[in-house]
Amino acid sequence: MDTRIKQQLSFALEIDKLKNIFRQTHLSGNGRSENDAEHSWHMAIMAYILKEYANEKIDITRVMLMCLLHDIVEIDAGDTYAYDAEMLSSQKEREDAAKERIFSILPESQKNEFIALFDEFEACETAEAKFARAMDNLQPLLLNHSNNGSDWRKHKVTAEQVYNRQNKTKAGSSTLFEVTDAILKENIKKGNLQ
Amino acid sequence: MDTRIKQQLSFALEIDKLKNIFRQTHLSGNGRSENDAEHSWHMAIMAYILKEYANEKIDITRVMLMCLLHDIVEIDAGDTYAYDAEMLSSQKEREDAAKERIFSILPESQKNEFIALFDEFEACETAEAKFARAMDNLQPLLLNHSNNGSDWRKHKVTAEQVYNRQNKTKAGSSTLFEVTDAILKENIKKGNLQ
Repeated sequence: MDTRIKQQLSFALEIDKLKNIFRQTHLSGNGRSENDAEHSWHMAIMAYILKEYANEKIDITRVMLMCLLHDIVEIDAGDTYAYDAEMLSSQKEREDAAKERIFSILPESQKNEFIALFDEFEACETAEAKFARAMDNLQPLLLNHSNNGSDWRKHKVTAEQVYNRQNKTKAGSSTLFEVTDAILKENIKKGNLQ
Repeated sequence: MDTRIKQQLSFALEIDKLKNIFRQTHLSGNGRSENDAEHSWHMAIMAYILKEYANEKIDITRVMLMCLLHDIVEIDAGDTYAYDAEMLSSQKEREDAAKERIFSILPESQKNEFIALFDEFEACETAEAKFARAMDNLQPLLLNHSNNGSDWRKHKVTAEQVYNRQNKTKAGSSTLFEVTDAILKENIKKGNLQ
């Protein structure tokens, strides 16, 4: 086996570990905690199904790639809950080190391509990144809503905190933000969000 | 919310169930059983990383979509182990019913698009389907090999059975079949395959 294919297969095996990184979100039917690999799969399909609602013209392949890749750094850096201020403050440093180690397993050109996609997602400035980010918000919202807001209730999350995060959906899709807003209003009414 | 977006979000929630369909393959590090959503995520990224080894020119977006979608029918039909002859005989009937029910949750045009992609993957005739199928073979092979062939040993799988399946990788990628062949020979030598 030549070096290039060996590096590619090593990377493929390394990212298997993402299946053991668990999130705060629970599966529908009040199921177990969701892991990052499942979450990424779900986001990529949702992006494809919902692409007609993007505010701007998007390259759906790049969006799907960002969805599939955006959490790989959590193999080293762990999951940072969206409403955990302390963990959020060290998130960038942890994720930068992880990004360098994990993507360096790939051949140089693919390393650079994946880091560029990861950075683009994080910067959230291109149409593709904004739509992928909207998926990163909508996917757990759908699950949590289907479980009557149990994740929000457990963590005593406030409506303000959720809106601060979910407002970013607007940049990717105003239609999907309208859906989000309706879901949040329903959960506030039910007392699931303080 | 209009009907179309409601159908799309219902489908998004329905496919969450794929995370509860467990396969015979175990995660690396002799981990737990893998589920279909994780497997699909892994295949889609592997397809993108390894696309240069496809025998024919491929549209990588369609390959990734097939990877992400190909197991959704198992929400109803369950996982059919590649080496279980009895389950294999009823597989098509079970999967056809599932395909109709699950994809019908989507708006008509998207239902038709997804069923076409699913059928294309199953027929394994186009360049894209053949390469996606190669990923469906290579991904569990990598995991099982990393676990010293424990899944093969557990099910007393023979080399002949594995070659019957893995031979199909050749149609998608002769380079990846060479890798597969080397891995299988190593496992035969170790006594992991009878």
